[in-house]
Amino acid sequence: MIKKNRYSSSFITFLLIFEIGIFFAFGFWFDYDSSYYPETTENDPRVEKYFTFFSDTTVLALMGFGFLLVYLRNYCYSASGFSFLLVAFAFQWNLLVYAFFYQMHIDIFGKFKLDIETLGRGIYGSLCALISFGAFLGTTQPTQILMIIFIEIFFYQLNYYINIFKLQAFDMGGSIYLHEFAGIFGYAVTLGLGSRKDIKKHPDIKSRYNSDIFSIFGTMWLWIAWPSFNAMFSPTGFQFRSLLNTIMAISSSVIAAFAVSIGVRGKFHMREIRNATLTGGIAIAAASHLKMSLVGSMICGIIAGALTSFLSAILTKSFRVFYGGEQIRRILFFHAIPGIIGGFASAFGAGLADEDKEPYKDHYHEFFPRGDVQYGAQLAAMGITLLIALISGYLTGLIINEITFRNTQPLNDSEYWHVPDDFEETTIDSLGIPRDHKGNVVGDEWVLEAEIK
Amino acid sequence: MIKKNRYSSSFITFLLIFEIGIFFAFGFWFDYDSSYYPETTENDPRVEKYFTFFSDTTVLALMGFGFLLVYLRNYCYSASGFSFLLVAFAFQWNLLVYAFFYQMHIDIFGKFKLDIETLGRGIYGSLCALISFGAFLGTTQPTQILMIIFIEIFFYQLNYYINIFKLQAFDMGGSIYLHEFAGIFGYAVTLGLGSRKDIKKHPDIKSRYNSDIFSIFGTMWLWIAWPSFNAMFSPTGFQFRSLLNTIMAISSSVIAAFAVSIGVRGKFHMREIRNATLTGGIAIAAASHLKMSLVGSMICGIIAGALTSFLSAILTKSFRVFYGGEQIRRILFFHAIPGIIGGFASAFGAGLADEDKEPYKDHYHEFFPRGDVQYGAQLAAMGITLLIALISGYLTGLIINEITFRNTQPLNDSEYWHVPDDFEETTIDSLGIPRDHKGNVVGDEWVLEAEIK
Amino acid sequence: MIKKNRYSSSFITFLLIFEIGIFFAFGFWFDYDSSYYPETTENDPRVEKYFTFFSDTTVLALMGFGFLLVYLRNYCYSASGFSFLLVAFAFQWNLLVYAFFYQMHIDIFGKFKLDIETLGRGIYGSLCALISFGAFLGTTQPTQILMIIFIEIFFYQLNYYINIFKLQAFDMGGSIYLHEFAGIFGYAVTLGLGSRKDIKKHPDIKSRYNSDIFSIFGTMWLWIAWPSFNAMFSPTGFQFRSLLNTIMAISSSVIAAFAVSIGVRGKFHMREIRNATLTGGIAIAAASHLKMSLVGSMICGIIAGALTSFLSAILTKSFRVFYGGEQIRRILFFHAIPGIIGGFASAFGAGLADEDKEPYKDHYHEFFPRGDVQYGAQLAAMGITLLIALISGYLTGLIINEITFRNTQPLNDSEYWHVPDDFEETTIDSLGIPRDHKGNVVGDEWVLEAEIK
Repeated sequence: MIKKNRYSSSFITFLLIFEIGIFFAFGFWFDYDSSYYPETTENDPRVEKYFTFFSDTTVLALMGFGFLLVYLRNYCYSASGFSFLLVAFAFQWNLLVYAFFYQMHIDIFGKFKLDIETLGRGIYGSLCALISFGAFLGTTQPTQILMIIFIEIFFYQLNYYINIFKLQAFDMGGSIYLHEFAGIFGYAVTLGLGSRKDIKKHPDIKSRYNSDIFSIFGTMWLWIAWPSFNAMFSPTGFQFRSLLNTIMAISSSVIAAFAVSIGVRGKFHMREIRNATLTGGIAIAAASHLKMSLVGSMICGIIAGALTSFLSAILTKSFRVFYGGEQIRRILFFHAIPGIIGGFASAFGAGLADEDKEPYKDHYHEFFPRGDVQYGAQLAAMGITLLIALISGYLTGLIINEITFRNTQPLNDSEYWHVPDDFEETTIDSLGIPRDHKGNVVGDEWVLEAEIK
Repeated sequence: MIKKNRYSSSFITFLLIFEIGIFFAFGFWFDYDSSYYPETTENDPRVEKYFTFFSDTTVLALMGFGFLLVYLRNYCYSASGFSFLLVAFAFQWNLLVYAFFYQMHIDIFGKFKLDIETLGRGIYGSLCALISFGAFLGTTQPTQILMIIFIEIFFYQLNYYINIFKLQAFDMGGSIYLHEFAGIFGYAVTLGLGSRKDIKKHPDIKSRYNSDIFSIFGTMWLWIAWPSFNAMFSPTGFQFRSLLNTIMAISSSVIAAFAVSIGVRGKFHMREIRNATLTGGIAIAAASHLKMSLVGSMICGIIAGALTSFLSAILTKSFRVFYGGEQIRRILFFHAIPGIIGGFASAFGAGLADEDKEPYKDHYHEFFPRGDVQYGAQLAAMGITLLIALISGYLTGLIINEITFRNTQPLNDSEYWHVPDDFEETTIDSLGIPRDHKGNVVGDEWVLEAEIK
Repeated sequence: MIKKNRYSSSFITFLLIFEIGIFFAFGFWFDYDSSYYPETTENDPRVEKYFTFFSDTTVLALMGFGFLLVYLRNYCYSASGFSFLLVAFAFQWNLLVYAFFYQMHIDIFGKFKLDIETLGRGIYGSLCALISFGAFLGTTQPTQILMIIFIEIFFYQLNYYINIFKLQAFDMGGSIYLHEFAGIFGYAVTLGLGSRKDIKKHPDIKSRYNSDIFSIFGTMWLWIAWPSFNAMFSPTGFQFRSLLNTIMAISSSVIAAFAVSIGVRGKFHMREIRNATLTGGIAIAAASHLKMSLVGSMICGIIAGALTSFLSAILTKSFRVFYGGEQIRRILFFHAIPGIIGGFASAFGAGLADEDKEPYKDHYHEFFPRGDVQYGAQLAAMGITLLIALISGYLTGLIINEITFRNTQPLNDSEYWHVPDDFEETTIDSLGIPRDHKGNVVGDEWVLEAEIK
């Protein structure tokens, strides 16, 4: 009665074991934070402080990163559906891993009390998962995706533990440990999987008119929610500075990305408009709580927006590098590179800060635990993150490639989803490539022969 | 000059009488809550406490339930447009009915002072309307929809009055009086209307590729807004527990629904991914403010997600029950059943609570006004709700069927909307069923003969 | 290597000069508000008071007005993309112009301290830009759009300065200085550009089934965010009244617009459902903080919803005025007219207020700085706004027409965007008008000959 296909058994088995494990871990290890019991008759100030930001971060994950991925013509169910699954999956798993490293840090193992701040930490894992997912979007089957993210979250928190807890580098909104890490990790996974060539010239790495509109809709939500996201864990009293720096950076990167996109190509290209416009938010993230000055934030935004859209356009248009490798391009140009820019910005901000001067004076050591050599810690963190992400990502790709099988037809929803009657229409292609009735490309020759427009 | 068609006269007449009635009722009976006058120079704490949650609940209604209904291929204008109208209509009417029953409860009739909490109560009526609307989506014409909802809101509040005010059962986020009631009521209406057979095998009860994407977009908004919704009326100091329980339940139901959907069918099906994933939020709603423990919330979510997607998949795939009756399946499996699960969870939570122990100790009677027999009140409330919803819904269906005429072609926007030139394209159908140029199926034979894929 | 097309050079040049100017202006003139430094250990109350509202206003801009414009069949990239650019562009520029007029008002020129309230002022400029953009949507090329908005923001703030600072008229949510101004300005620009005839009967001024759904999605966000928007700058303690008045007005205009749309046309029309439903929010905006009474707010909403949808429907259907001039119709009927209704409502509210009676008693002069003649100030403000908008808009149109060149094919994304393979499909037209492979109409005869359905 219950039909199994080649993807379902491993998927269910993995998810079943995972959820049983999560269940016992939460049962024995986690509890409500008891300080939320009804001793108070007023609103809980932590609910007021964090909840709006937490809620906006969920928007950032599902509406922003989730819908940003709905750009491929035949992969919209998977992009939205698997994003949805990953948000839930990575959230639960990340809470556990965070708790583990946090207790290792304070060196007290025991009941972990869940408070609302920790929920915010948890949802960071979902963002990390969705960023990396973009790198192997369409080239991996569901079980592979879950396994990759499962491993990633561990190294994500290990990297966080080393850099934030031990090295005491700071990273307010995640330029380094979120965007740089997840971007490089995702890229390294594709290297390990060996999947790049496979899809390099695939005719389905293209958007439809409607899928692009769904996707730019994700872009706009990222714009809306990014200030809240960068400000979530800002020290009390500095949330406004995080908001303001982020807004200045992100509005500047929008302008820069539009100008460069049409400048290099002669016409706007949705890839840059959807992605490069937002890189200002990534580039200012690490240092968003510092006194970067308004023009400092604008510079971060302009550099990020201009550089990433320049690279995206020029390497495609004139040098034909990454031609067709849409996913690789997205992850490197629009996450890893702006993340690294953000790392340098944080080093810069730390290097310029003066212990004896405003605005940090009394709070200098709160902002810069490493004091005079904080900038060094920032640079080191970027290096360590690069290394951990590259190695762990590559090994993850190799291992996953070894222990799982691959999807037969990439970039195609009908592989895992019941698709409606009009699905075939969406796969109509002006290249005349032979396809079967489900829209799958027939034969392998197209990989080499088809000339992509 | 003014053209009337068969639907417009009754629609306008009903809405005109309704709005005049509302107008006088608000004029003579309602007023601003005078405590909001400017004696204070600080922010109003009630604005701060409730407004975010109120705003998120509006999102839940319009973006969540509204767009969740935009899944039918030729009924997207109606699904979104009528949802929009119902939110406004049910909100205004529900405020009045709520005020009536509330004043009956406190036994003081007089000027009703509108405060921001009452606005939150009002928007519950919009949610109730949208849930039930899903049951007769596409099979009823606009005037019928308005009349059904008009009657429903009365019984919705009557049921609330009996169970919450008199019986003193609790139901924080509406498992019982919202989802069970509206689910059963909507189903009973379709029985009364006798419309099930009519659309059972209709070729238009299917989604398009894009309509499914619009719809999953609604799903994601429900995920985002559900914690706020369940926490809105949580006792001060317990909002965090509502948030946390809801998040644990809902992330678990996502995972369970994905696993079961592919397990039973071999491939994921958008119906389960769009709907069953969220049932954890319904199942935990009634008891979300209690100390269910984290794993208790997870169990609620897992049971709801797994059971509802199992039923949805297995009854379609193997037993061919509800085959084609998409609307019935949605309302029963994804509202009524998880609502009932939530009712049992609340009874369970009440039964396990101990007057002398933490965490309820000093607040025991605030949480459980019925004391030791609270669990009995919860079970009774579920039974009463089932009864009221079934009877009132069935009678409503019968009456509406008697006093109004039906739409000639179900599931088709062009019946009530000016449609654009490309509407015809969306009705393309691989079944070869004869249609006229507006996409309406010609003749009646298709009902019996067409074999649905 | 860098290809220039006829649009790109002027676009890049303008944006480059703009951003350099902004950069130096922010560098020398603006600074963080120093009161946000860490003397406090509590949450900043201004962050709490304003941030939710600011964030909702960003939603109003991008999701609301942005997606509301995504209704044209072949102009979805431009509508969403240029809206996105305009939000960033107008926000930065408007901050400067606001600061200039504000310092002229207080007569102290010096460092301008950016606080979170000012961010809210800044985003108003984005809304103003998006409203006017709707008037020349599809008939202007990107550089023209930027230049028009650049000039508009100056006159927008000049008008604000005259009416709010000097004349001391009030306008809480912008009926007069936002909707009336931007509506009339946009219309006047099209007069100056002489573009109306050009697109009057263009076959592409039509929506697709999916573009309408994207657009109604914008409508719903406007419904959700409008209460926050009107309440943002409400005096402390009166935010609730703004929220409540707005909700009453807007729910009434939804009902009125639905009834009138089907009444006049026989079927619902998406133009009215997308636009007229929301005019209640505009009509109550100016006076949303006053004690309009609940039924007063309802009357505002009903008049606005009914009148605007009546005009929209009757002038198209029976008199064939504005037949095809979709953009003109939208801007006049759904922004300018409800804005003027809102102006009259504010005059009415001011005229009825009594200095010696509740609720204004002690706060009378805070609400009505002009005392007994406040109503006259309101009416004068409406006249001044009309005049400034009409003259400055017309001259702007003339000048822009002189110094820039026009787009060759209106209403077509492929003019400025790399479009995907299926773009051609979206331009399929039942009129049999000859088009080239990019969907552009071939020849000019169609303007006169084609009979639009």
